[in-house]
Amino acid sequence: MEFAAIHHDMDKRYCFALSKGKFLIRIKTKKDDMSKVVLHYKDKYLPIHFFDSRQTVEMKKVATDRFSDYYETVIDIDVICLRYFFELVDTNGLTKYYCNYFFYDYPMEDNDRMFDCPQNLREEEMFDIPDWAKNKVVYQIFPSRFATDKEISDEEWYKTPVTPFDDLKGDLRGIINRLDYIAELGIEVIYMTPIFKSKSTHKYNTEDYYEIDPDFGTKEDFKELVDKAHALGLKVVLDAVFNHSGIDFFAFKDVVENGENSKYKDWYYIDGFPLKMVPRQRPNFLCFAYYYGMPKLNLRNPETEEYFINVGKYWIKEFNVDGWRLDVGDEVTHDFWKKFRTAVRGIKKDALIIGEIWHYAGDFLQGDEWDTVMNYQFYLSMIDFVVDERITATEFLGDLGFMRGNLHPDCYKTLLNLIDSHDTPRFKHFVKDNDKKHRLAAAIQLLTPGMPMIYYGDELGMTGALDPDCRRGMLWDEERRNKETYEWYKSLISIRRNNTAIIDGEVVACRTDDENGLIIETRKFEQGELTIIFHGKKKIVELKEYKGRINLINGKVFDGKVRAYEALVLQ
Amino acid sequence: MEFAAIHHDMDKRYCFALSKGKFLIRIKTKKDDMSKVVLHYKDKYLPIHFFDSRQTVEMKKVATDRFSDYYETVIDIDVICLRYFFELVDTNGLTKYYCNYFFYDYPMEDNDRMFDCPQNLREEEMFDIPDWAKNKVVYQIFPSRFATDKEISDEEWYKTPVTPFDDLKGDLRGIINRLDYIAELGIEVIYMTPIFKSKSTHKYNTEDYYEIDPDFGTKEDFKELVDKAHALGLKVVLDAVFNHSGIDFFAFKDVVENGENSKYKDWYYIDGFPLKMVPRQRPNFLCFAYYYGMPKLNLRNPETEEYFINVGKYWIKEFNVDGWRLDVGDEVTHDFWKKFRTAVRGIKKDALIIGEIWHYAGDFLQGDEWDTVMNYQFYLSMIDFVVDERITATEFLGDLGFMRGNLHPDCYKTLLNLIDSHDTPRFKHFVKDNDKKHRLAAAIQLLTPGMPMIYYGDELGMTGALDPDCRRGMLWDEERRNKETYEWYKSLISIRRNNTAIIDGEVVACRTDDENGLIIETRKFEQGELTIIFHGKKKIVELKEYKGRINLINGKVFDGKVRAYEALVLQ
Repeated sequence: MEFAAIHHDMDKRYCFALSKGKFLIRIKTKKDDMSKVVLHYKDKYLPIHFFDSRQTVEMKKVATDRFSDYYETVIDIDVICLRYFFELVDTNGLTKYYCNYFFYDYPMEDNDRMFDCPQNLREEEMFDIPDWAKNKVVYQIFPSRFATDKEISDEEWYKTPVTPFDDLKGDLRGIINRLDYIAELGIEVIYMTPIFKSKSTHKYNTEDYYEIDPDFGTKEDFKELVDKAHALGLKVVLDAVFNHSGIDFFAFKDVVENGENSKYKDWYYIDGFPLKMVPRQRPNFLCFAYYYGMPKLNLRNPETEEYFINVGKYWIKEFNVDGWRLDVGDEVTHDFWKKFRTAVRGIKKDALIIGEIWHYAGDFLQGDEWDTVMNYQFYLSMIDFVVDERITATEFLGDLGFMRGNLHPDCYKTLLNLIDSHDTPRFKHFVKDNDKKHRLAAAIQLLTPGMPMIYYGDELGMTGALDPDCRRGMLWDEERRNKETYEWYKSLISIRRNNTAIIDGEVVACRTDDENGLIIETRKFEQGELTIIFHGKKKIVELKEYKGRINLINGKVFDGKVRAYEALVLQ
Repeated sequence: MEFAAIHHDMDKRYCFALSKGKFLIRIKTKKDDMSKVVLHYKDKYLPIHFFDSRQTVEMKKVATDRFSDYYETVIDIDVICLRYFFELVDTNGLTKYYCNYFFYDYPMEDNDRMFDCPQNLREEEMFDIPDWAKNKVVYQIFPSRFATDKEISDEEWYKTPVTPFDDLKGDLRGIINRLDYIAELGIEVIYMTPIFKSKSTHKYNTEDYYEIDPDFGTKEDFKELVDKAHALGLKVVLDAVFNHSGIDFFAFKDVVENGENSKYKDWYYIDGFPLKMVPRQRPNFLCFAYYYGMPKLNLRNPETEEYFINVGKYWIKEFNVDGWRLDVGDEVTHDFWKKFRTAVRGIKKDALIIGEIWHYAGDFLQGDEWDTVMNYQFYLSMIDFVVDERITATEFLGDLGFMRGNLHPDCYKTLLNLIDSHDTPRFKHFVKDNDKKHRLAAAIQLLTPGMPMIYYGDELGMTGALDPDCRRGMLWDEERRNKETYEWYKSLISIRRNNTAIIDGEVVACRTDDENGLIIETRKFEQGELTIIFHGKKKIVELKEYKGRINLINGKVFDGKVRAYEALVLQ
């Protein structure tokens, strides 16, 4: 038994209330080390001689990452505090009892040496992730390049953008006009990068958080957009930057004008006056990425904090927006996010809060800050598995298992699984226009639990290197589109939406063949069973046992041969 | 290399600011698995071609628990975000690079695959533990049994208490009269169990949080107590219960009287009216331990929250109290403790906040709730090592190492290391009056970093079984005292206070001899070196290499023989 690898904590990550009276307990062990894990639990305060509340339940392995297994169980309880410990039986038959961070040879009877969890506390700290968001398909729109209602030549629209100031005239009316296209694809949530007043095309340097950028349209346009989207069953998520403002933001302008006498000087982190705002030199005030054009906001200043929390409330209250995606979320204090969540949820109790972070975000995802994140860990694993073929199928599955094992189960169902975004090269670019590889990645993305986030145009085979090239004008011209890729996406989204086994099914069998780059997973749900096959290598592999089944993606009978970078959903 | 045992998080437990510009990075590995651990770090935003900020530093093993090693390093930085990864070399010479939860064979150059920590964020979340508290010696007073200014016969004072209502007439004036005794012993902090108005002797069922219990005295007495203690260099910590009130508390009385119409009904968690308050039956409102006499307060109700936060502020503001010990701390929400800390620290910026919890309390000790805890884990390990001789010397040291490796270093220096309390049998009772064992435990307690907490009378050899027996009248009668034990405590406290090597020294050598139950540690500080020996077994062990050195505890020359349960401090 690998004692050093066994991990449990009495905190919200390993012991939490799923709903009133329902507790999830989790423990991590070394991969393939255990043959059985049993939870023993009882009421902390009722003495056994008074009422014997002791119970046991065998825990289930729910996830495996590259090196660890995660066991979980959900129990029904009604106690003040839960006392518990684990019975661990390893593959050699050795049994140990893990109690309050120590191992014993016998089941524990001493209350003070068990793990301990107050039910009331955990229930009041419950992670309440909106049901509507779970497993929904997201479409990311970069408004200045997605669609326009204005006159623009094809030459101009389809040219490669060179700077963040290249204006392609994209606008809200353009998006409104294309909502049908989005709904038709099967999308369920739209997330737009910032639309507030700002001089760049990306608008991450906000000038006015209370105004729609006039190039994009008006508040009336935005209201219409949200209402029409809702009518089509689409939720709408906005993007905001609370880490920094633009230099045209009223408070920063006041600081520039009035220096030390500005009443807004404490809205920023300023080291001295006059302000140093010289390109390629380190400014004398905190900025995003040392860039003076994006001065960092001091959200510890109660006035500033209140201002931005009100921004968060305003757009939800006035325009019925369904959630926020928060830029540079990991550079803003936990304290601010806790207050932000309380305030925004006070306006709309099922508003979704998505943080931008490129790393594992466990400390932001404990129930009182964000609901979920842009899942860039998924993106990196996809690069490794599909683009570079650097990791095995088992390692790739392990990367998904890491998230499943370390996050709240509902949070896992709302991770924005992405293969690219406005901040990365297009996936198509990474795979050097290899459509098979691109489609494999899309299939993995769309057949995995979570909120797959499709970057606008990926479904049409758009390409583009790093920003600004990845932000080209959307391919409205049908001649420029890859129709096969479009059908691929549409079919997969439809399969996902029509077969709950895909996202909510129990994985009844899962095997990988690292030699051949194969992942084969059978998922079961009330409506039946599906077998999903991903093939991360070029060579043809025979899989006779599934021959004759129908592949839901193209409706054809599977001939027993898995071809280069193929993905199959077999009924 | 045991990959599954390697653990690092980008959160406050493994990556935190010690002060502005000083970061501590920590990583956990399997015990004895590594021969070298190196931290590689750089500025996240400065591209290497612009300024090469890359640095490396070898990490130091600072703690070992039963199964893991903890490596740390402190770095000086001035960046927006720190990017970093670990170079791990195991004892077989295998080298791996641990980057963002994955292992690579080469040093990482891809920014997005490194660990990531925003400096600003961590600095704003810094764990600010009062300097005055670090390593100070605490004396726990149970006021109703410690001393009285009233007339009481010896017979009555020294009888065994039978119920929580046995009144021994202990009072504040009694404590005031004995402050000299406490200071003379070498104590630096007094912590009194509750003194607010309440009908029991323990006073954990509070009737009025704004009044001193009249049996104990007046506010004037208390003011005098604090002022005199301060004049003697003693800090004063009060005890409060915010988890529940007594049934005589005005709000609960109102609920009892007015039922559903009470404006205080939301101050509690009530399932129905009329209230069920029947001994030995489960009440129909939440209580501490199902006991109807201690109804649980609903601190999620903003009115109730405000009331109790004001209590926290009041006694510090009006009486210059130095800190709070918080009863049943782990059954009160994190949210309340965060607000409590902010409020109390707003009144006195170095107020100490101590939680009562019997378990590892990592989630309360991340800088925004408590400073430290009653260290009952230390108590349990002491039972195992000294009382039951059930664990080895190595395992005992491992238990201390667990705390050192998992908590903020300053928090480790303020853990209230205890061998008993008002809630446990006396240690003397556990060891069946074996004074040698009792003194060994006291020596370990007083020679370990942290805040050793002496339960009143332990220093005089008091005994007593579980509550109420452990709360007997203090042995003011000199004839009843164990003078040797008193001298032992006094000498050890004096050694501790006069030799910074004891508490702040670097451990330059440490070995255990599990066969013979020996712990031998050499600690070095500017003023010199000390070797501390603890002997957890009965047999005599020869240790010739230290023969001839002076034992600071009794001033005698060490003859090379360690006797039963002996503790030595050799110069």
